[in-house]
Formats: sequence, C-alpha cells, structure tokens
Amino acid sequence: MTSQELQNCHKRILPFIHRTPVLTSQLLNKISGTELYFKCENFQRMGAFKMRGATHAILRLSDEQRARGVVTHSSGNFAQALALAAKNLAVKAYIVMPSNAPQVKKDAVKEYGGEIIECVPTHKSREQTANQLKLEKGATFLHPYNSIDVILGQATAAMELLQDQPDLQYIFAPVGGGGLIAGTSLASFFFGKNCPVIGGEPFAVDDAYRSLISGKLETNKTTHTIADGLKMPLGDITFPIIKQYVSEIIRVEEEEITSAMRLIWERMKIIIEPSCAVPLAALLKEKERFSSKKIGMILSGGNVDLSNLPF
Amino acid sequence: MTSQELQNCHKRILPFIHRTPVLTSQLLNKISGTELYFKCENFQRMGAFKMRGATHAILRLSDEQRARGVVTHSSGNFAQALALAAKNLAVKAYIVMPSNAPQVKKDAVKEYGGEIIECVPTHKSREQTANQLKLEKGATFLHPYNSIDVILGQATAAMELLQDQPDLQYIFAPVGGGGLIAGTSLASFFFGKNCPVIGGEPFAVDDAYRSLISGKLETNKTTHTIADGLKMPLGDITFPIIKQYVSEIIRVEEEEITSAMRLIWERMKIIIEPSCAVPLAALLKEKERFSSKKIGMILSGGNVDLSNLPF
Repeated sequence: MTSQELQNCHKRILPFIHRTPVLTSQLLNKISGTELYFKCENFQRMGAFKMRGATHAILRLSDEQRARGVVTHSSGNFAQALALAAKNLAVKAYIVMPSNAPQVKKDAVKEYGGEIIECVPTHKSREQTANQLKLEKGATFLHPYNSIDVILGQATAAMELLQDQPDLQYIFAPVGGGGLIAGTSLASFFFGKNCPVIGGEPFAVDDAYRSLISGKLETNKTTHTIADGLKMPLGDITFPIIKQYVSEIIRVEEEEITSAMRLIWERMKIIIEPSCAVPLAALLKEKERFSSKKIGMILSGGNVDLSNLPF
Repeated sequence: MTSQELQNCHKRILPFIHRTPVLTSQLLNKISGTELYFKCENFQRMGAFKMRGATHAILRLSDEQRARGVVTHSSGNFAQALALAAKNLAVKAYIVMPSNAPQVKKDAVKEYGGEIIECVPTHKSREQTANQLKLEKGATFLHPYNSIDVILGQATAAMELLQDQPDLQYIFAPVGGGGLIAGTSLASFFFGKNCPVIGGEPFAVDDAYRSLISGKLETNKTTHTIADGLKMPLGDITFPIIKQYVSEIIRVEEEEITSAMRLIWERMKIIIEPSCAVPLAALLKEKERFSSKKIGMILSGGNVDLSNLPF
C-alpha cells in the first residue's frame, strides 16, 4: 500500500461520506491530563466509520459486478453501512442476518434499502446463506473488515484527523476485527509525524492482544462484552498490518468501558456506542504514561439501543 | 433595549462562554420537511444557555457588589451556571437549594465552586433563605430569568445563530420562565430579517400560552412535566417582552416531548435534556405550516440524569 492509494480512496469516497468534525473537551483534557482530539465518526452517515469502508469496497467493483449486487453477513454497523452505501451507488445489497437479530437492527437495514435474508443464528448458516446468494444472484461478497479496500476506506478517518491535527503524538482506536485500527495505523504511518497507534480492546475478547504476543491468529473463547462491535476476531488480512504498524494494545475491563462511555455522554453531550468508548478507557487506564501528550481518539460510532443502556 | 446593548452584552460575555456550533441533520430535515439549524447550547459551558445570562448578570455588577458575592435560589441549570460564572469572575456564589434536591445537582454546583445553602423545600423557605444571605453577606440576588441583564445574556444565543444563518424564516425556542425566549425574540427583532419567534411549551405548564391569551400573568396549577427546566412561570419582566415580540406559542404533550428528544438523540447523536426537545416537538406537531422553511432551533441544554431516562 502507498500513501497515494489512501489519497485516491479518500477522493473516491468523499462525495458519499461526511467529513466528520474533530471535537475537544476541556473537561476531558483535565480528567486525562492530556490534550485530546476526538474524531467524531458517531456523526458519520448511518452513525459509524463503517460507512467509509463499505462505500470504498463497492466503488472498487466493476460495473458488471455492481449490476449484480453485493452481499454480506452482519448484524452490526457494517450491515447498515453496506445497505446505505449500496443505495447511494444504486447497487442492490443483500444482507444476511441471523433470525434473532434485534428488530431495531433489521429496521435500520430496511430503512437504508437493504434486502434482508434471514438465516439460522449460527456462523455456519450465515456463511452458507451468503454463499448461496453469491451463486444464485452473482452478488459479490464483501467482508466487514478483512479486505484491503475496506481497510483503506476506514483509514480515511485517521487521515482526515491528521489533516486537521498534523502534530498528534498518539492515536487511539478500538480493536475488533481490525479493519479500523489497521487503516488507522496505515494512515498514521503515511501521514503522521512519528505518531504511534494504540489499540483499545476489551479483556473479554482480547484475541488481538494475544495474537500480537503469540505471532499467530488467536481466537476468543467468549463474546461476553458490552462492546458488541468488537466481538469479531482479527482476520488474516487485518492481522499482518496490525502486527507491522500498531504499537501496542491496552486491554480494559467492562466497568472501565461503561465508565468511559458515560464520561463522554455526560461531559461532551454526544452519544457514542460502548465499543467506541474502549480506546478512551484504555487511555484513562494508563494516563500517566501519556501525560500532556497530544492525542487523537477515533470515536467509532454512535448506534446504541436507547432502550437498553448500561447506566 | 437597543441592538447596541445586545452587541455590548455579547462582547462582554464572549471571553467566558463558548460560541456554540450550529448543526444540521439531513434526516431531521427529511422528517420535518423543513431546513433546520440547531444552535447547540447543550455544548455550552456547564451544558446550557444559562451560562450566558448568569455571566452577563455578574459582569453588570459594580466591583463593590462583586466583592460581596451573589446569591440565587435554583435547583436547576441556573444554579450551576451562576456557580461557574461566579468562579470564572472570582466572585463568591451562594446557591440556595431545597434539601431534597438531587445529589447530582448539588455535586455539580459544588464542582463549579458554588457554596450550597440548603433550605426546606418550599418556595417561601427558598426566598427567605436567599433574603437572609442578602442581609447577612451583602450578596446581590440574581434572578434566574426575570432580569434584563439575564435576558440580554440569553439573547446572544439567537444573535450568534443569526450571524451564522442570517436568512432564517423562523426561530423556535422553549418557554419556561421566559428568559430564553424573551432574549431570542429581541435578537430576532434586531438582527433577523422578518423572522418570527415561536415558543414551545408543555401543556402541563402552559402559563405562557394562557398569559398571551388573557393578557395578564397566569400561573400553573401543576408542574407534572418531564421538561423540568420549563416549570417556572413567566415573570413580570419577561412577560411584556414576550407579549410584544413572540409570535405564538405551540403547546405539546409529554409523549411528544419524549419522542422529539429521542429523535435528536438517535438521529443527531447528541444529548439534550427534555426541556430542550420541546420546540422541536412543537414544530413537528404543526410541520405542515412550516414546510420548506428555513428554521432556527435553539437547543437549550444537555444536562440530563443518565440514570433516569424516559426511554
């Protein structure tokens, strides 16, 4: 990958995404003892950075591929992102969702014009159903994170942040499947001035932390975390980039996630989802090390079920 | 009052307040059928527009008055605003609060450096305790809304909004004691281009609506509304301004308030308090009349108890 590829990607997706604002908070600076710059992807279209990667992945398809549609399996933000990105580009989107997915998630996908295909709630059934759609419709399967085009799209958030704040000394991002942090680390490598990228990961799903230690892809035994966007394991495309470009991963407890989430809600008056609070929780946990540093924080998304809050 | 007075007020308070952003939302434009510009006083210092009026009221005192401190009775945003504004200006603030006020409100006042004096939770006791402090400490009593200096301070929110969006065709604001909407209507009169100001008021505390009909100050029989910032009745200083400059008041039901609040949380990903949702509820209630108009919406504040949400 080259910096030119990132710049081309940004140019391609720009008409279809928001350039999100960078917010600051005197109170959170005081609490953390650092100088924080929050890149607000919770204000992104459909409410999360996933809109960037989904848009880029579709834009990289040929006209013929676009004519046959795209398919993914997801019950999270990528489902909504792909539905909306496809709609914007007049492409048909088939979204495979487990039959027990929350109605609010199904409604959102429908609202964005995606066609939902329900399946039995097992990983195997999801993959089979998606495969069937590939065969039957000729639709192109797009993975939520384990794809260079998706990673490049996600990279544009940190790229914009570094355009606004070129002197950042660190950037924090959450780690789930690794698309966002892989992209963030590439953006920092190409456009930062010696700016290490640090991941925040819940202890409950710390496969990335363990993978960096063992040097091979580890799996998660449980998925019991409030950070529902971070349950997926790293992929074989995100992992090598993370291994090369991410400096370290800091793990956090569930209470630390809820507490960081509440801090942002109460002090900044903005809505973020639990996964989005993980990097701030990581910073606060080891704040002494980062004292007085200028730090970028990728706020990944704001899609939260208001009827089911952890407060 | 003159436009010069408003400009002077703005110049005076500017070093002590945030110039808050004006946000837009394609989704809310679609839902309302209008073009909305949200003036985000929920991002104001201490989380509400009250910071403007409180700061201005203290700045208008003589050095001698400032040296003896200020006093108010409030368990709401004005208590916090006066505490913080006083702290910024190195003035002592005595805040009379009912003994049964929520601990979270007391903590906020303390955090901003205000001295809390507890009283029996009756209106009479609040006034007596405040009077006592006036006598004992020589502190100047500052009313939360029934004061020209406070009204001028609150007016600066709409003034900034009209600087950013000079062509607004309507401005909506909530009506409680009337400080904000009186100020908003003055700002629109001086700086708007024929831009009527419309108030949103809960049915449960519709004294302003009834006062405009009867031509005299009406009172509220109950205070059973989720919009806890709008329970106070108009004052004899806010009412005449409202009578002269506010075009109309639209009343809304409790469910309409909660629903408008949820809409802003979910669609704009920002946190507003129930009172703050009242003008949007009013617009949505009669949206056909405002179709395609360019409308300013004063978002008054974002101080909400996350442990006690209406969703």
